[in-house]
Amino acid sequence: MSDCLFCRIAAGEIPSTKVYEDGKCLAFMDIGPVVQGHVLVVPKEHFANLGGATDEIAGHLIAVARKIAVAQMKALGSAGFNVITNQGAVAGQTVGHLHFHVIPQFEGRAHKWNWDAHPYADMAEAAALAEKIRGAL
Amino acid sequence: MSDCLFCRIAAGEIPSTKVYEDGKCLAFMDIGPVVQGHVLVVPKEHFANLGGATDEIAGHLIAVARKIAVAQMKALGSAGFNVITNQGAVAGQTVGHLHFHVIPQFEGRAHKWNWDAHPYADMAEAAALAEKIRGAL
Repeated sequence: MSDCLFCRIAAGEIPSTKVYEDGKCLAFMDIGPVVQGHVLVVPKEHFANLGGATDEIAGHLIAVARKIAVAQMKALGSAGFNVITNQGAVAGQTVGHLHFHVIPQFEGRAHKWNWDAHPYADMAEAAALAEKIRGAL
Repeated sequence: MSDCLFCRIAAGEIPSTKVYEDGKCLAFMDIGPVVQGHVLVVPKEHFANLGGATDEIAGHLIAVARKIAVAQMKALGSAGFNVITNQGAVAGQTVGHLHFHVIPQFEGRAHKWNWDAHPYADMAEAAALAEKIRGAL
């Protein structure tokens, strides 16, 4: 799509700092990294998000994200990483073109996510939600 | 592994609220959800993390995560989602068995992640990191 930032980056119309490229995807440095070394993996074909993509492209992107996360550990000395894809503004997606974040994490200066667990008052509540989800699969 | 929580759940030795199961993976409700409806997708075979897994299993898990995220939207009315895998305690991994979080997000009551962007002072810094990562691919 001509007005899509990541389509334009994939097409080379907007410059990026490339980390990896193949026929189906491009990986480049996020210019607003959560942690320095943060990479984005995007398909060359436009998909708005994971739900609108295909299993085949999702599988390719996760394989590339995996390879990059391991390379970050080797090359940068990171001790771990987060691989994240967000769908929808409500979930924090800010560019409407599917992308996986590969965020290296370093001992001593890790980004601590605000991972707030809210246990169910009653596991029947979880069971009811599970039943609804199963029904829509 | 006999002392692995998710291996024991996958083997049925510890109960879980199942959402999906096939020969290679299991999806069940996270008992400490970030948002109600939060599902975990785990391989039946033990892999400590994404880096230690295979492209094939990673591709299978992301396809199942995608299917579940879409089913959450249909069944629960979520407007989007986060799909996340963390590797290493430094990144927030708390169970040493590969898992993908599928976290639904709802309008009006979304979990807002502390997504702090720290732009590079100089893009040469990003270029130097990219070169290192490329060298380790």
